[in-house]
Amino acid sequence: MSFRTPVALPKSYLLLNHGPLTLVSSAAGGRKNVMAASWAMPVDFDPPKVAVVIDRNTLTRELVEASGEFVLNIPARHIAREALEAGSRSGREGDKLAALGLGHAPASQVGAPLIEGCLGWLECRVLPEPDNHRKHDLFVAEVVAAWADPRVFDNGRWRFHDDQLRTVHYSAGGHFFATGEGFDIPI
Amino acid sequence: MSFRTPVALPKSYLLLNHGPLTLVSSAAGGRKNVMAASWAMPVDFDPPKVAVVIDRNTLTRELVEASGEFVLNIPARHIAREALEAGSRSGREGDKLAALGLGHAPASQVGAPLIEGCLGWLECRVLPEPDNHRKHDLFVAEVVAAWADPRVFDNGRWRFHDDQLRTVHYSAGGHFFATGEGFDIPI
Repeated sequence: MSFRTPVALPKSYLLLNHGPLTLVSSAAGGRKNVMAASWAMPVDFDPPKVAVVIDRNTLTRELVEASGEFVLNIPARHIAREALEAGSRSGREGDKLAALGLGHAPASQVGAPLIEGCLGWLECRVLPEPDNHRKHDLFVAEVVAAWADPRVFDNGRWRFHDDQLRTVHYSAGGHFFATGEGFDIPI
Repeated sequence: MSFRTPVALPKSYLLLNHGPLTLVSSAAGGRKNVMAASWAMPVDFDPPKVAVVIDRNTLTRELVEASGEFVLNIPARHIAREALEAGSRSGREGDKLAALGLGHAPASQVGAPLIEGCLGWLECRVLPEPDNHRKHDLFVAEVVAAWADPRVFDNGRWRFHDDQLRTVHYSAGGHFFATGEGFDIPI
């Protein structure tokens, strides 16, 4: 976890704006967990907010409801296998982080851990919206701290060089896309 | 609009699962419009639902609230410039579709048009959730029909070949990423 520098909150949406796969980490009552979530997006700039779908049958849901907190971790391609497994195993079967060999470090504002092998981290506090939780498994949360790997995210911009240090986008059935070629259109 | 075949509704989330940039098209009272939205994602499989953020100051918001409908269009790289402009001009200044030179065709279930130069289309009906609209500019909608360009989406899977016929992911300030290299991890 040595490659991690703070991201100013009004720029934190940029970590997520391009739609990468995320890992949702959580902790409560001495337990912690991680699951994969493609269904995550920004919903506001400042204060920054995100929305994420967390299925009601998951351990993550239980821990997020108990703590009111989670971290959206943005995995690098080199842990795509672990991310896929994080989305297919249940944390109820045992410590999933340990089983996957995923290291983690303490967050600054929430109890959920920051997952190693990721390139961006959004520490989040859930807004009390029981209707969204019940009807859509949808959690809107305020981002209270954010971090990025300065090798690939600097001054509000992703700059990918190494193929393994790219964010990824998940399709289905074990099929991913790497975040591809960057290009600019003059505004 | 000759490259458009139906996508079965339970597979329609796959059009959006990898987090591409979308164009939200809308129509009401003889007016129509298009805007760019990166903040769009699936929220359920079957019946399929999506969530999208539509700012309260936009013409799109007015048309979506009046009609209860929109289409999420998934643009190809070759119209990235038009997508960027769709996100920076207001439809209140005149017919934005005409100004951008974007062709369109009638949808099957909703009044909003299907935008040409796109690779996927999700016809959507808004759920009545005034709290989400008011608090977060967030619209949850049911997908009632879906379409894809069979050159790049077949049997529930994106298969990109041509660089210009790829979906894109938007960062900020005119900076995009193309959807990159596909890779598989055995489940």
